[in-house]
Amino acid sequence: MSTEVPVGTRVHVKVPGSSANLGPGFDTLGLALSVYDHVDVEVVGSGLEVEVTGEGAGEVPLDERHLVVRALRAGLAKADVSVRGLKVHCHNSIPQSRGMGSSASAAVAGIAAANGLVGNVFTPATMIQLAASFEGHPDNAAASILGGAVVSWTNTPVDGRTAPQYYASRMEVHPDIEVTALIPNFHASTQAVRSVLPTDVSHVDARFNVSRTAVMTIALRSDPSLLWEGTRDRLHQPYRAEALPVTAEWVNRLRNQGYPAFLSGAGPTVLVLSTEDVDLKILEEAADQGLRVERLRVADGVEVTAGQR
Amino acid sequence: MSTEVPVGTRVHVKVPGSSANLGPGFDTLGLALSVYDHVDVEVVGSGLEVEVTGEGAGEVPLDERHLVVRALRAGLAKADVSVRGLKVHCHNSIPQSRGMGSSASAAVAGIAAANGLVGNVFTPATMIQLAASFEGHPDNAAASILGGAVVSWTNTPVDGRTAPQYYASRMEVHPDIEVTALIPNFHASTQAVRSVLPTDVSHVDARFNVSRTAVMTIALRSDPSLLWEGTRDRLHQPYRAEALPVTAEWVNRLRNQGYPAFLSGAGPTVLVLSTEDVDLKILEEAADQGLRVERLRVADGVEVTAGQR
Repeated sequence: MSTEVPVGTRVHVKVPGSSANLGPGFDTLGLALSVYDHVDVEVVGSGLEVEVTGEGAGEVPLDERHLVVRALRAGLAKADVSVRGLKVHCHNSIPQSRGMGSSASAAVAGIAAANGLVGNVFTPATMIQLAASFEGHPDNAAASILGGAVVSWTNTPVDGRTAPQYYASRMEVHPDIEVTALIPNFHASTQAVRSVLPTDVSHVDARFNVSRTAVMTIALRSDPSLLWEGTRDRLHQPYRAEALPVTAEWVNRLRNQGYPAFLSGAGPTVLVLSTEDVDLKILEEAADQGLRVERLRVADGVEVTAGQR
Repeated sequence: MSTEVPVGTRVHVKVPGSSANLGPGFDTLGLALSVYDHVDVEVVGSGLEVEVTGEGAGEVPLDERHLVVRALRAGLAKADVSVRGLKVHCHNSIPQSRGMGSSASAAVAGIAAANGLVGNVFTPATMIQLAASFEGHPDNAAASILGGAVVSWTNTPVDGRTAPQYYASRMEVHPDIEVTALIPNFHASTQAVRSVLPTDVSHVDARFNVSRTAVMTIALRSDPSLLWEGTRDRLHQPYRAEALPVTAEWVNRLRNQGYPAFLSGAGPTVLVLSTEDVDLKILEEAADQGLRVERLRVADGVEVTAGQR
């Protein structure tokens, strides 16, 4: 028998955006970014009311199809708890469809809101499993849940019936590492950008990414001087360059000047991780070409508080 | 003008063996093992005298072709230092051609001995570059030089004329991690075992190893509960199983019982990293089948002392 959350119960969720892959760590590495969506949820007597302000306002369905609502429902179902009605208000700052994890953050926000409503019964592992199920890979979701940098992985059962299991582990990030995002003013479809990936790659390229991913774990944690080497990739960016020419140009340009730049997630955002500010002249030029420049920090994981913001 | 090391100068080198790959980290991850070769070098008036006792005695050439001697000469040349003659005595315990890094250890011993003779002018980075040049990949050599676990990588210049550059970074290993080696009584040719690797692999397998390599860095450093997941591999062991049936059988058997077992380097040795002893009954059965069982620890890097042992 499911229990019911009392009408009037309110939670506030602050969820960070994230970057996935970080160069070589395809579907593996993630990083929480200091750009946030805020979600207020109130249990009401009946119905569903969804309001969206900020990023995505006017572009997303304000009903049960809304990702935050779907994740909220999944979380409540998992806890076997019901609500009479819901009022959901999303105040979004994470740019959407830009490779900054907005979908994963929405899923995490919904799960975290449900967790808050039911009295925080979910472990981080359960939240990762629930949130990653919406995307099919856990890198972004795990970063938004755990904060810092994450290593994530998936086990797909061979029986074909059981659901994939998603896992992640948090890594502390060296405090000197700064994040600069160059955000183009157009969207990229994750699905389209994934479809350009080849079925096979050379063994040489596979082990190239294996080694650079290992280097990146050291660069992130303890030796930022290795960030450039640790962001080299041969498994996805070379194939995506044609679909994302502006991004590829800026990644190459920044890397040729020594900055550890890479495609954030499936793009089109370019991220730079560095211990010194990116040259202002380069950033001004990027801005002139229509890229929004954001200086960000590595963020902590999702926060849930009782009541409204 | 090269300077000359005075006749009578002596150094003693203690170099650990090593394991490479550690499952998914092909040509990347390495681990120093507490099994040692000892090398005494004395500068004499003329000629070259090489003596080998222990592992490899009677099987290796006792002249300029000996790997320790070749590495020693390369080290002296790098430092632009000459010697009139050399007396080299190797007391070996590292099993040879078993996947425990004996060749890399020999190269490291020679470089380290040269470094000792010339007054320790080489940085660890220079030693890695010199020693790895003998093998073409730095995983074993870097482990023997730096100790602990290492992440290593190679940059191959595109000009086709310049030599590859070898790099490595040391990672501390969780103190609870124990090493058990099952050492078959036959050799494996690294070259033969490398030749069975495919030219191409699937993108799925490539990213599988990317994620497990990242997991392994966390397992080794801070969370040994992830050792099993972090030693899963799809880039080399499946292809080598046919060439190394006994090894493959033991790796599978141990893994099916929950032990993080894997092919050590190019084999045929099986290594288990774990926080609890491997069941004695399994080890006795392995011994009955002719595998030597050695309980080892993670070792520190090569040590050079003045004088003789």
